Amino acid sequence: DFMNALDEVRPAFGVNEEELATCVQNGIIKYSPYINGILAEGSLFTKQVRNSEHTPLVSVLLHGPPGAGKTALAATIALNSEFPFIKLISPESMVGYNEAAKVAAISKTFNDAYKSPLNVVVVDNIERLVDWVPIGPRFSNAVLQTLMVLMRKQPPKGRRLLILATTTERSVLQQMDILDTFDAQIGVPNVSTLQELEYILTEADIYGDGQTNSEPGRGKVHSILSTLNGQTGTTDIGVGIKKILLNLETAKQDPDFDSRFVELMSRSVNDRVML
Amino acid sequence: DFMNALDEVRPAFGVNEEELATCVQNGIIKYSPYINGILAEGSLFTKQVRNSEHTPLVSVLLHGPPGAGKTALAATIALNSEFPFIKLISPESMVGYNEAAKVAAISKTFNDAYKSPLNVVVVDNIERLVDWVPIGPRFSNAVLQTLMVLMRKQPPKGRRLLILATTTERSVLQQMDILDTFDAQIGVPNVSTLQELEYILTEADIYGDGQTNSEPGRGKVHSILSTLNGQTGTTDIGVGIKKILLNLETAKQDPDFDSRFVELMSRSVNDRVML
Amino acid sequence: DFMNALDEVRPAFGVNEEELATCVQNGIIKYSPYINGILAEGSLFTKQVRNSEHTPLVSVLLHGPPGAGKTALAATIALNSEFPFIKLISPESMVGYNEAAKVAAISKTFNDAYKSPLNVVVVDNIERLVDWVPIGPRFSNAVLQTLMVLMRKQPPKGRRLLILATTTERSVLQQMDILDTFDAQIGVPNVSTLQELEYILTEADIYGDGQTNSEPGRGKVHSILSTLNGQTGTTDIGVGIKKILLNLETAKQDPDFDSRFVELMSRSVNDRVML
Amino acid sequence: DFMNALDEVRPAFGVNEEELATCVQNGIIKYSPYINGILAEGSLFTKQVRNSEHTPLVSVLLHGPPGAGKTALAATIALNSEFPFIKLISPESMVGYNEAAKVAAISKTFNDAYKSPLNVVVVDNIERLVDWVPIGPRFSNAVLQTLMVLMRKQPPKGRRLLILATTTERSVLQQMDILDTFDAQIGVPNVSTLQELEYILTEADIYGDGQTNSEPGRGKVHSILSTLNGQTGTTDIGVGIKKILLNLETAKQDPDFDSRFVELMSRSVNDRVML
Amino acid sequence: DFMNALDEVRPAFGVNEEELATCVQNGIIKYSPYINGILAEGSLFTKQVRNSEHTPLVSVLLHGPPGAGKTALAATIALNSEFPFIKLISPESMVGYNEAAKVAAISKTFNDAYKSPLNVVVVDNIERLVDWVPIGPRFSNAVLQTLMVLMRKQPPKGRRLLILATTTERSVLQQMDILDTFDAQIGVPNVSTLQELEYILTEADIYGDGQTNSEPGRGKVHSILSTLNGQTGTTDIGVGIKKILLNLETAKQDPDFDSRFVELMSRSVNDRVML
Amino acid sequence: DFMNALDEVRPAFGVNEEELATCVQNGIIKYSPYINGILAEGSLFTKQVRNSEHTPLVSVLLHGPPGAGKTALAATIALNSEFPFIKLISPESMVGYNEAAKVAAISKTFNDAYKSPLNVVVVDNIERLVDWVPIGPRFSNAVLQTLMVLMRKQPPKGRRLLILATTTERSVLQQMDILDTFDAQIGVPNVSTLQELEYILTEADIYGDGQTNSEPGRGKVHSILSTLNGQTGTTDIGVGIKKILLNLETAKQDPDFDSRFVELMSRSVNDRVML
Ligand SMILES: Nc1ncnc2c1ncn2[C@@H]1O[C@H](COP(=O)(O)OP(=O)(O)OP(=O)(O)O)[C@@H](O)[C@H]1O
Ligand SMILES: Nc1ncnc2c1ncn2[C@@H]1O[C@H](COP(=O)(O)OP(=O)(O)OP(=O)(O)O)[C@@H](O)[C@H]1O
Ligand SMILES: Nc1ncnc2c1ncn2[C@@H]1O[C@H](COP(=O)(O)OP(=O)(O)OP(=O)(O)O)[C@@H](O)[C@H]1O
Ligand SMILES: Nc1ncnc2c1ncn2[C@@H]1O[C@H](COP(=O)(O)OP(=O)(O)OP(=O)(O)O)[C@@H](O)[C@H]1O
Ligand SMILES: Nc1ncnc2c1ncn2[C@@H]1O[C@H](COP(=O)(O)OP(=O)(O)OP(=O)(O)O)[C@@H](O)[C@H]1O
Ligand SMILES: Nc1ncnc2c1ncn2[C@@H]1O[C@H](COP(=O)(O)OP(=O)(O)OP(=O)(O)O)[C@@H](O)[C@H]1O
Ligand SMILES: [Mg+2]
Ligand SMILES: [Mg+2]
Ligand SMILES: [Mg+2]
Ligand SMILES: [Mg+2]
Ligand SMILES: [Mg+2]
Ligand SMILES: [Mg+2]
Repeated sequence: DFMNALDEVRPAFGVNEEELATCVQNGIIKYSPYINGILAEGSLFTKQVRNSEHTPLVSVLLHGPPGAGKTALAATIALNSEFPFIKLISPESMVGYNEAAKVAAISKTFNDAYKSPLNVVVVDNIERLVDWVPIGPRFSNAVLQTLMVLMRKQPPKGRRLLILATTTERSVLQQMDILDTFDAQIGVPNVSTLQELEYILTEADIYGDGQTNSEPGRGKVHSILSTLNGQTGTTDIGVGIKKILLNLETAKQDPDFDSRFVELMSRSVNDRVML
Repeated sequence: DFMNALDEVRPAFGVNEEELATCVQNGIIKYSPYINGILAEGSLFTKQVRNSEHTPLVSVLLHGPPGAGKTALAATIALNSEFPFIKLISPESMVGYNEAAKVAAISKTFNDAYKSPLNVVVVDNIERLVDWVPIGPRFSNAVLQTLMVLMRKQPPKGRRLLILATTTERSVLQQMDILDTFDAQIGVPNVSTLQELEYILTEADIYGDGQTNSEPGRGKVHSILSTLNGQTGTTDIGVGIKKILLNLETAKQDPDFDSRFVELMSRSVNDRVML
Repeated sequence: DFMNALDEVRPAFGVNEEELATCVQNGIIKYSPYINGILAEGSLFTKQVRNSEHTPLVSVLLHGPPGAGKTALAATIALNSEFPFIKLISPESMVGYNEAAKVAAISKTFNDAYKSPLNVVVVDNIERLVDWVPIGPRFSNAVLQTLMVLMRKQPPKGRRLLILATTTERSVLQQMDILDTFDAQIGVPNVSTLQELEYILTEADIYGDGQTNSEPGRGKVHSILSTLNGQTGTTDIGVGIKKILLNLETAKQDPDFDSRFVELMSRSVNDRVML
Repeated sequence: DFMNALDEVRPAFGVNEEELATCVQNGIIKYSPYINGILAEGSLFTKQVRNSEHTPLVSVLLHGPPGAGKTALAATIALNSEFPFIKLISPESMVGYNEAAKVAAISKTFNDAYKSPLNVVVVDNIERLVDWVPIGPRFSNAVLQTLMVLMRKQPPKGRRLLILATTTERSVLQQMDILDTFDAQIGVPNVSTLQELEYILTEADIYGDGQTNSEPGRGKVHSILSTLNGQTGTTDIGVGIKKILLNLETAKQDPDFDSRFVELMSRSVNDRVML
Repeated sequence: DFMNALDEVRPAFGVNEEELATCVQNGIIKYSPYINGILAEGSLFTKQVRNSEHTPLVSVLLHGPPGAGKTALAATIALNSEFPFIKLISPESMVGYNEAAKVAAISKTFNDAYKSPLNVVVVDNIERLVDWVPIGPRFSNAVLQTLMVLMRKQPPKGRRLLILATTTERSVLQQMDILDTFDAQIGVPNVSTLQELEYILTEADIYGDGQTNSEPGRGKVHSILSTLNGQTGTTDIGVGIKKILLNLETAKQDPDFDSRFVELMSRSVNDRVML
Repeated sequence: DFMNALDEVRPAFGVNEEELATCVQNGIIKYSPYINGILAEGSLFTKQVRNSEHTPLVSVLLHGPPGAGKTALAATIALNSEFPFIKLISPESMVGYNEAAKVAAISKTFNDAYKSPLNVVVVDNIERLVDWVPIGPRFSNAVLQTLMVLMRKQPPKGRRLLILATTTERSVLQQMDILDTFDAQIGVPNVSTLQELEYILTEADIYGDGQTNSEPGRGKVHSILSTLNGQTGTTDIGVGIKKILLNLETAKQDPDFDSRFVELMSRSVNDRVML
């Protein structure tokens, strides 16, 4: 019945644009040249899969801290490829599946991909797909082995496949000997400088109607950044874009947006320090 | 059949007021500004879920020592939200379920929530839901992974979800890498000062008919507090509100309420010291 | 079929007096004020459950060395309550049950209790119920978690429940984090002084027809005690009432009761020393 | 079908003399007063079970090195009791049973015993019944727990039960906390002196037709003992009766019985030294 | 149904040339005398199996670093044998199989081989076939034991079998005591010198139409090698042929092939250094 | 169906000569008095089982390094017995069986043996039968326990049984406490001296048509031995007969037999040194 469930929710073939769009809910703010670099590297691999006859399979790992934007970037690269078959394998779509069901669902997605000429499979959040928990440690070896084999299995003649995987637990994957499996690895960083944060606040237009980029808006933003700098005593933000956007929304519930945002960001920055 | 059992006991949709009320059996005594603070923070998150389009999911963890009032406060925040769908996921409602049954029941509750526009799910006593025991240690990884994924899974378009979870084992959750999963954490403290205890005794009206707040009542209460202080040699109570209310009831069985209550409280305070 | 077996042997509702009586096969010899104290404390909790509206659930743990009389005392407190529903959950009644069957049987007993206004459930020998063995260590986490939740689960409105549990492995329960679960703990000691032993020998009327309490009887008893004292070199007996009563019976098979009893008791006392 | 197998082979009720006789294949050679002592102690417990109303259940553990004669002695005590119901629970009768089947077979034997007034159950080779292996270590906790409970479970009113268990792994049982379960423990020693060995050789009449006890026979036996003494350099034999009887038989295949027996015994004695 | 799947995809008997050809997708570039040596040794064992009556079974292990060409060489030896029955046992053909299904599929392949006079079975990637992961460590003992027995099992009278196995985890196989199982072991090295790399670039004709081997082509190749040498500071390449061929293809997507290839190779060489 | 498979392949009763003959494929070369000694000791135990009424069961363990000839010698002893029932329990005949199937197949063989008066059961390669792997370590305790019990279980009245077991992992069996189970142990050595090797080469008639034992043949053999001695720097061969015979066959594929054989033997001798 989980197979039925699977079939109901998503078309067996083709691209489920809506599902992938959900991964990029808040767009891609290009707050740093790194972000452009990641998208460029992604498009290079896309090109290689499309063009080179000798490399019908290319697999890429996007790794980085929680909330750095890994899933959003993988989904963006996938959508940019404009390949006719793009599928997402994610823990959210397999809630309640047992080990065998997960293995079957993952296999099915890859088998579907083998039937189309040009394919992208996004394998999101590997550590969660394999039910990783550091106590023990425990994980599903059946799912892990399935992924390890499928991520190296050559597609049949005439088929091409780009695999985009994401993880926050690169060192765990290393211990599992799964890193070698990837043809390339791309690091996704946290937001790290005050300038980057300024760019994000402006882009998100925190005061609305473009006011953020007006003279007074810029002043207020600078004031936010300098207060934050003072409170945290550091210019190294080290917070993921996802958390920053969440803090923005929480602060918006407060009449005094500026103070509240500084408070929330300070907490986030300090949590980072405690790591 | 556990699904049937489930359906019999609780309405599939909507709010089961009675079940939630049981969690607040003895009301909320506002013995400290902290208590008001917790309820205020809860209402802020409620507001964010209702208003912000960019954060359809907010998850909050209430953590603290045994009997501090975590469940009662979570239930109160949930009821205060007046959202049309409020559900409680608790170990008590899953006695005798095996791992698969628990996973199914939890998934079902979340799936139900995805069908209503504004929802609260209270996930009570996470360490018990995952069958945690420190020897081994052992726990149900299947239930844990299900919770980890569901607590981050975005509701479908147009649906909003507030998750309120409770635990006494925050450090265990940290070891399980599940703390990151929450957007916010709220600590629930023990009753800690003699003044707080005095407030509780008065509010509970231990001598009945408002006598506690009369001149002689206040005198007796002061005498209780000072004897307790003498016996324990500390002004730091460090006992949960739940245990204090239980001690009150046990002492009421004794004709000499005052001495018995002091004895029971001394024992509770000393047990704390031994931790 | 184990459910059938269950139903055959015991009435689903009410009190199975015979089963509980078996636990007190040799009566309660009040060889020390502690014994009275334990029964008094038990009756206080019984009273609280009957009277207090705010504490519909009280759970008490009787702990102590093997054979100290824990089960007999728990059964006695239960019978003294005169509550209409009294049930015993014991390893002996679940021989051959697998984990799921045990969980089901335990749940059923509690569910039955929730249907009657005033209830006692005796949970005998927790470490055996959870299949504890120190090698590993191993135990049934499913049974343990079921007990942990059921021992804190509030009965439905208008129902009251007193839980009396016994264990010889208090430190194991502590490691399992299950001690917090109890509202109160009562220690059951070994027989420890020669006077207590004298009281027991007299009460058991070892020479029959009341002769033990006659002049010559008392002399013989004193002689037994002083020989034992000499042989063991200690006045600290440290043997459970159960073993003492067994030694009495074994000695009775020997024409020379006195020497044989001293020999058996010496061995028992020395075994204790070796711990 | 294992239950069928069970039923075919042995009568459900009563005594299976043949099976028990197999355990004493080579009789009981009373080579030392210890052997008489063991049988006497066994008969005392038999008497207690028959006579004392307060001890309907007595359990005794026979422990000692491999091949010391534990099973033969337990079977002899059981047969001497002349109780109407005597049953043997042994690993040999449960070859190929899985855990559940073993638990069921053991429970059945005890349940059968509860239907007869006077019963003996021999529980042979506990470490093998529980599938003990020191690597891990591993064992069947289900079988172990079943035995632990059944060996303490009071028979129903009017029924009496003597349990005779055997083991070579007393220290393992101690680690398993199962030693406390027994009311008494009896050690079964190895054959240890040259005199005891002489007694055995004579009793076994190694030269046939009573010649062993003739003048020349005694001379040859003395010569064997003194050669053995010389070769091993010790008067401490430390070999089980079972191995000695096996060596006798192997030596008989050799025309030169004496030398061959000395050789085999030397090896056995030295193996002991190597422990 | 996995058996069906099996049957559909490959003919039960005979040689599946296409599947084996996929393993040698990019041919065998004889960049070093080692490569010829390996093929020669392979053909010697092929000859022995064909000719010697006393050795109907010969098993050979090809081991070496990831991407060294183990699978391609094993497939080539197998195809060169021109035996009528050649089969590949690989993890890719058993994705999603559970332990029992794997054991069955492996057994079936060997059983098929026992029906034909001259056979090769390629057992590719043993560590993956047994689901090896270093955390734990964990692996399928059932699959391992099946392989261990089948790799030593004599074929029936008149049947001959050559087994060619591959692994990157020779030390793991040693810990598993499976190395002894092989009659011979062949190491497959990485590409290690600049000369070897030059040979490969020329053979792969990186500039197309034979230009690579022209005067200017050779110049550009030398320039690539010397830049690489400069950037890595070593003449020891230490990269597998597979990775080198992949880097070639990636570089071809870049207008500036030379720089891009040097960059990719530098990274590969340095990754090696970090091991 | 595995039972069917079993029945098809071998007759349920009697001797499967062919299967046993496969174990002695290359005969028994009596290269050392040890070999004769082993066969003699085997025939002594055969005699004891046939003659002695008091020892209906004798079990013997043949242990030694891999390829020493353990299985061939056990099969030879079994065949020499000329008992009407001779069966082989081997890992090769149970490929793909799960734990329960193995236990059943082993039990069946022994049960068949109990129906015939004189029986031999060869239990080949115990460590493989129990799925032993040193990582973990892991093994099938169910199969192990079955073997432990069956190897000591007395056959029914009038039945006799000789058990011949083999292993390369004697120290593992010791850790498993299974060594005590055997009545006798026989060590099977490697080929160790140059003289023994000379004997084997002559016996195998490496130059064919008896030429090996001619003047020139003996000279060439001596030359081989002295070259080997020179290359390895030792007179201690330490290689199993099985490997030596394999090396002979491989060398025969080479026109220059002598050099190739020396090379292969050197490698084998050195591998030994590396242990
Ligand atoms: N430059 C950016 N890169 C990535 N995401 C961005 C960027 N700018 C804005 N976003 C938004 O930030 C969010 C990033 O969340 P995302 O789930 O991709 O992070 P993640 O690293 O996958 O988190 P997790 O560790 O929880 O899996 C998305 O909502 C995305 O639309
Ligand atoms: N200020 C307060 N905060 C919370 N609970 C209160 C307060 N005042 C009174 N109570 C009462 O105290 C009890 C608190 O018990 P609750 O079960 O919520 O504690 P808990 O921390 O969840 O305990 P546990 O650790 O056992 O889960 C409830 O009966 C509640 O009605
Ligand atoms: N004062 C007493 N307290 C308890 N039991 C007593 C007392 N006097 C006599 N007895 C008798 O002693 C026996 C005590 O055995 P009981 O099984 O209750 O001990 P236990 O501590 O539960 O043992 P175990 O550790 O084996 O569970 C009973 O037969 C009881 O009738
Ligand atoms: N005094 C004796 N005590 C016990 N057994 C004796 C004695 N004299 C002779 N025997 C014989 O010695 C053998 C003892 O073997 P038994 O199987 O009882 O030993 P065990 O200690 O149970 O061995 P294991 O450790 O293998 O279980 C039996 O055949 C028995 O008939
Ligand atoms: N000399 C060579 N030896 C082996 N393969 C070569 C050689 N020259 C070119 N190739 C090509 O290189 C590739 C080698 O990949 P192959 O899968 O055999 O490596 P592998 O060592 O099995 O890798 P893995 O460790 O991932 O299993 C094949 O595509 C093959 O055609
Ligand atoms: N003296 C001998 N002893 C044993 N085997 C011999 C002897 N001479 C020749 N052989 C041959 O040597 C081979 C020995 O192989 P066998 O399988 O018996 O060894 P093994 O010790 O059982 O190996 P393994 O450790 O792999 O189980 C057989 O083919 C046998 O015919
Ligand atoms: Mg993500
Ligand atoms: Mg709570
Ligand atoms: Mg008890
Ligand atoms: Mg025995
Ligand atoms: Mg490969
Ligand atoms: Mg062998």
